Amino acid sequence: NLENAIDWILKEMEKDNLSNVHGEKVKVPVWIRGKESARLIKPFVKDLSILGLGGSIGTRRTGIRGEVIVVDSFEELDERKDEVKGKLVLYNAAFTNYGETVQYRYKGAQAAAKYGAIASLIRSVGPWSMNTPHTGVMAYTDTIPEIPHAALTMEDAMMLRRIHDRGDKIILELKMEAKTGADRYSRNVVAELPGSEFPEEIVVLGGHIDSWDVGQGAHDDAGGCLAAWHAVKLIKKLGLQPRRTLRVVMWTNEENGGRGNKAYRDTHMAELDNHVAAIESDAGVFKPQGFGFSGSAEAMDIVSEIGQLLNSIDADEITEGGRAADVAPLNDEGVPAISLKVDGSKYFWYHHTNADTFDKVDRDELNRCMAAMAIMAFVLADLNEPLPR
Amino acid sequence: NLENAIDWILKEMEKDNLSNVHGEKVKVPVWIRGKESARLIKPFVKDLSILGLGGSIGTRRTGIRGEVIVVDSFEELDERKDEVKGKLVLYNAAFTNYGETVQYRYKGAQAAAKYGAIASLIRSVGPWSMNTPHTGVMAYTDTIPEIPHAALTMEDAMMLRRIHDRGDKIILELKMEAKTGADRYSRNVVAELPGSEFPEEIVVLGGHIDSWDVGQGAHDDAGGCLAAWHAVKLIKKLGLQPRRTLRVVMWTNEENGGRGNKAYRDTHMAELDNHVAAIESDAGVFKPQGFGFSGSAEAMDIVSEIGQLLNSIDADEITEGGRAADVAPLNDEGVPAISLKVDGSKYFWYHHTNADTFDKVDRDELNRCMAAMAIMAFVLADLNEPLPR
Repeated sequence: NLENAIDWILKEMEKDNLSNVHGEKVKVPVWIRGKESARLIKPFVKDLSILGLGGSIGTRRTGIRGEVIVVDSFEELDERKDEVKGKLVLYNAAFTNYGETVQYRYKGAQAAAKYGAIASLIRSVGPWSMNTPHTGVMAYTDTIPEIPHAALTMEDAMMLRRIHDRGDKIILELKMEAKTGADRYSRNVVAELPGSEFPEEIVVLGGHIDSWDVGQGAHDDAGGCLAAWHAVKLIKKLGLQPRRTLRVVMWTNEENGGRGNKAYRDTHMAELDNHVAAIESDAGVFKPQGFGFSGSAEAMDIVSEIGQLLNSIDADEITEGGRAADVAPLNDEGVPAISLKVDGSKYFWYHHTNADTFDKVDRDELNRCMAAMAIMAFVLADLNEPLPR
Repeated sequence: NLENAIDWILKEMEKDNLSNVHGEKVKVPVWIRGKESARLIKPFVKDLSILGLGGSIGTRRTGIRGEVIVVDSFEELDERKDEVKGKLVLYNAAFTNYGETVQYRYKGAQAAAKYGAIASLIRSVGPWSMNTPHTGVMAYTDTIPEIPHAALTMEDAMMLRRIHDRGDKIILELKMEAKTGADRYSRNVVAELPGSEFPEEIVVLGGHIDSWDVGQGAHDDAGGCLAAWHAVKLIKKLGLQPRRTLRVVMWTNEENGGRGNKAYRDTHMAELDNHVAAIESDAGVFKPQGFGFSGSAEAMDIVSEIGQLLNSIDADEITEGGRAADVAPLNDEGVPAISLKVDGSKYFWYHHTNADTFDKVDRDELNRCMAAMAIMAFVLADLNEPLPR
């Protein structure tokens, strides 16, 4: 339970003697998966592993049974729009990169419903699979009917494409209890190590404390939260205190609405001019490679120079682009945004799956992520002049 | 369905104009998984992914609910035997190698039932997991009560160990419909390319045609069957005919009793003296490295020399030990046994799981396996003198 985890973290942060430890209330959407299942009925019977997509409506209690049309892309859907009515659309879109392929998860239901589909399915968004379904958020629009939207495994999606290409009729039964409830309160978690000289100037570092209801959210994003939190603990333990304040923030509801980062921005609007930088870790705690940066060229030079301090652990690569999900709204308000970059080769194996569990976290790699966060945040908070905008 | 697959293969082999294409009846055990589920009830509710183990009895229809005791080894079970009565035993045995760790799958139920356990669970046998349960065969003895035996995922087993170590009581509910039916007939598949000079002398090459009821049995062992079959097709297509007969054999029931290999041995006992060698591929069709060999030192020298022909594809390593499951009974009768050795780094990721699907087979690696099988089999069948025993 997210709120229990937040309670525990707040207690631990108090024990760590961090300052200004508190939760900041955020109203968040509530989506409950319930039971869900998919069964191939024709051309043979097979139970399929699925995960409903966050925000999807459910089916009626007895399920939806219908013929499946398989397409590989939105373009193929458009070409075959006359075949769609009354069917389930399966997007068997191969993974190219997350930003591109995730469009089938976000918009697949709208695009299929527009042509009269009764439900839509995606090939799970990832480069590789162990018969692993991946969940994640999806969206409806006001103008198109809402239809259930779920993810099959990559293997099953590819198999259905093969069956479809052979000309065999595919009948599938989908049952989902998914529903959206009334908004509830969650909290952003905040804790500080106050600055010695300019305590009103703030370097934010953090991750998001919510995760999907599958797996343990180990890489997405408990590891990122830990890296930020323990970076500050480590600085404190070493008896160091930078000139400016280090503020650990664990945003809530990143996965299912982004209400946490918007609430943080709104709550702290008055002090955003004093936010020197906001650093986020949300790409897993694999071997760190450096940081992405979104800010002025002048600031980029300074961040690159700080990056050099991470040369000994090969994490000194500073690249353009630091707008991770929870720091982007701050960046929109002028706050330089920084994101931890790590070896990404396995992130989308685990992302939003039941396999995102703690055994996947390498302690040494996690420690390196903490070190990278600690050094970047500490030096930014201890510069003679605040980082230029 | 296994028998449908065998029908299809026999037809295709006829189309390939192979000789003596036929199925040889084998009575095999029948084990049916049925529905199965496990739910953690305490300290929190969570549905666990499981696979019942082949040959296990089911639970009563309403399931078994009880406290779980977690041990890491048979030794720990023995030490804590007084705590076992009336509980479910979970073996959280870390993977060392297959031969060692699989003992918990084979004998876990016996060992737990001996101390009064009502069911037993294993950590799935594999080095790594994406929340992946692995099935496989298990055994009872006549003298110890039969209890249900199933595999949890590695992640869940490790999690339960952590909960157990914290001192929290674990309650789990296990439901399995598994049952053993009356023996049925299956078939070993046989096809030949007759020898030009000594047709009565035979080089066998093959794999096993059965697979577990999960996944598609792509690496275990459809790929091995394909490698043998298409090796002979390739030799035929090239217009080559060795002096001795090449016989493709696809043994049935390797996974769940080994009746196919025993039946082949018994049916062909009279001609086993004329079996020059038996080559098996049952380690997945990954990048081939060479062959293992079980036979005389003199024969080993010849096989090693043949192996050198595979130098150009880096598959020339000939090592001791060719007794794979289906050729071992022939080896017991004096037939030199050879097994294809491949890069084993991922085999036990997929082995006996829903992830053993065709997308995991690299066509180039499969082709190299076929090439290795073709060359080893052809040269053995075309030697001036039969391979010495």
